[in-house]
Amino acid sequence: MELWYTEKQTENYGITAKISKTLHTEVSKFQALDLIETVEWGTMLVLDGMVMTTDRDEFVYHEMISHVALNTHPNPKKVLVVGGGDGGAIREIIKHPSVEKAVLAEIDGRVIEVSKQYLPDIASGLGDPKVDVRVIDGIKHIQESKQEYDVILVDSTEPVGPAVGLFAKDFYQGIYDALKEDGIMVAQTESPWLNADLIKRVHRDIASLYPVTRYYTVSIPTYPSGLWSFTMGSKKYDPLQVDEAKLFDPPGTRYYSPSIHKSVFQLPKFVEDLIK
Amino acid sequence: MELWYTEKQTENYGITAKISKTLHTEVSKFQALDLIETVEWGTMLVLDGMVMTTDRDEFVYHEMISHVALNTHPNPKKVLVVGGGDGGAIREIIKHPSVEKAVLAEIDGRVIEVSKQYLPDIASGLGDPKVDVRVIDGIKHIQESKQEYDVILVDSTEPVGPAVGLFAKDFYQGIYDALKEDGIMVAQTESPWLNADLIKRVHRDIASLYPVTRYYTVSIPTYPSGLWSFTMGSKKYDPLQVDEAKLFDPPGTRYYSPSIHKSVFQLPKFVEDLIK
Repeated sequence: MELWYTEKQTENYGITAKISKTLHTEVSKFQALDLIETVEWGTMLVLDGMVMTTDRDEFVYHEMISHVALNTHPNPKKVLVVGGGDGGAIREIIKHPSVEKAVLAEIDGRVIEVSKQYLPDIASGLGDPKVDVRVIDGIKHIQESKQEYDVILVDSTEPVGPAVGLFAKDFYQGIYDALKEDGIMVAQTESPWLNADLIKRVHRDIASLYPVTRYYTVSIPTYPSGLWSFTMGSKKYDPLQVDEAKLFDPPGTRYYSPSIHKSVFQLPKFVEDLIK
Repeated sequence: MELWYTEKQTENYGITAKISKTLHTEVSKFQALDLIETVEWGTMLVLDGMVMTTDRDEFVYHEMISHVALNTHPNPKKVLVVGGGDGGAIREIIKHPSVEKAVLAEIDGRVIEVSKQYLPDIASGLGDPKVDVRVIDGIKHIQESKQEYDVILVDSTEPVGPAVGLFAKDFYQGIYDALKEDGIMVAQTESPWLNADLIKRVHRDIASLYPVTRYYTVSIPTYPSGLWSFTMGSKKYDPLQVDEAKLFDPPGTRYYSPSIHKSVFQLPKFVEDLIK
């Protein structure tokens, strides 16, 4: 029997991947949670029917949500990840020698547990002594934090279900207040090909709060359209003003390098037009 | 009845798109040729079961195979497209005021005819007086041309069937001989995610012939992995040495702009490693 997993990424379009095994399936308090073994992309974590990460291409998302901000801030010591229960962003954050504490605020503890079990490489940083893993509501944690973090990363699922509040202006205001006076935030902001309205709105909201707002894109084959984006809000530092020659080169990366730090912000014309 | 077109882009992975209508289907002397109306991507041209172009994302491929080379050469007058029967590259080439003649060498006349009928915007340049449309074998035409062209673009299908010869070293040598002494070639070279071996080989072959060899990537959602690449071989001019401020800004583009001319050559680490 040949089994194929098909994700309708839009109502009328999707990807399909041959699977060799279903590893795990459950419905947690927050979402449907599946792990499958695909032939092309390795182990795949699927939440509410949407691909979150795969063994083979996870490095792009995790490196690129983390290192751009951490290499823009001159001395990031305390970092928060909202969401990101698989641990991939944490694994990258703790590569930076300046980081003293990395807090993970994941609402669904089951994501953390299954990631440890089935995606051990991605989750490998979660046991590090610098890492504080908390199964808590990220929105609440943001509300309770004031001038605490150097960098905050919003590593959320799509803007449906438990993640809707992570794309709201109130939330970005809360992050602003939770950041130190020279802090930086980065949020994952979907595909320029398929989520133009969301990208425009988030960019406008972040730009109304942060003096420096920057938008960058990366290639993630198993995400809708293959082109994914992040929006950065920064209170002080501009990622385009760093000295590339002096940037920290995080060990073991496969996508990020100091030499692409600035060029990822160079956008195709139709994408540039989205955030004008 | 709901109809979905599924392309297995690899043996174990693919895309699927809901279609509203099958517009045309035939088997030409060279290949199976289908045109379907998809809800997400508009009209889609499918050759031998592989998506060649769609209304909605065609601009990326056609702008990016053309303008990078034409804006690297200071005065391109005579340009050849091998393949590219849909006419999209031609439409972009003739935007450049210096171009006096653009030759299309397409082996399958049926591709040209159905494109004119079903993809009129893409094919819109084919009737221009500067354009010479020839239904001929591109390999033969290359063999017969000596020091004739300023720019040659290899706008081929995948390296199976009629296009195999378009990825061979002999062919790149022939192109070298068909170019003037300061000529530039660009070939489409598949996906860095899925075609590493081909990319390495082509890069090595082109680098053994041309003093300047450069590799760049673009985002094309309906192509395998969403990340596509082009390899440039240049006898004299380096795309990274142009003065961006002086580049021609082709009218009506949606992807290319002078400001991304150089940044498309900045590669993620795993891609950079492919061509080392």
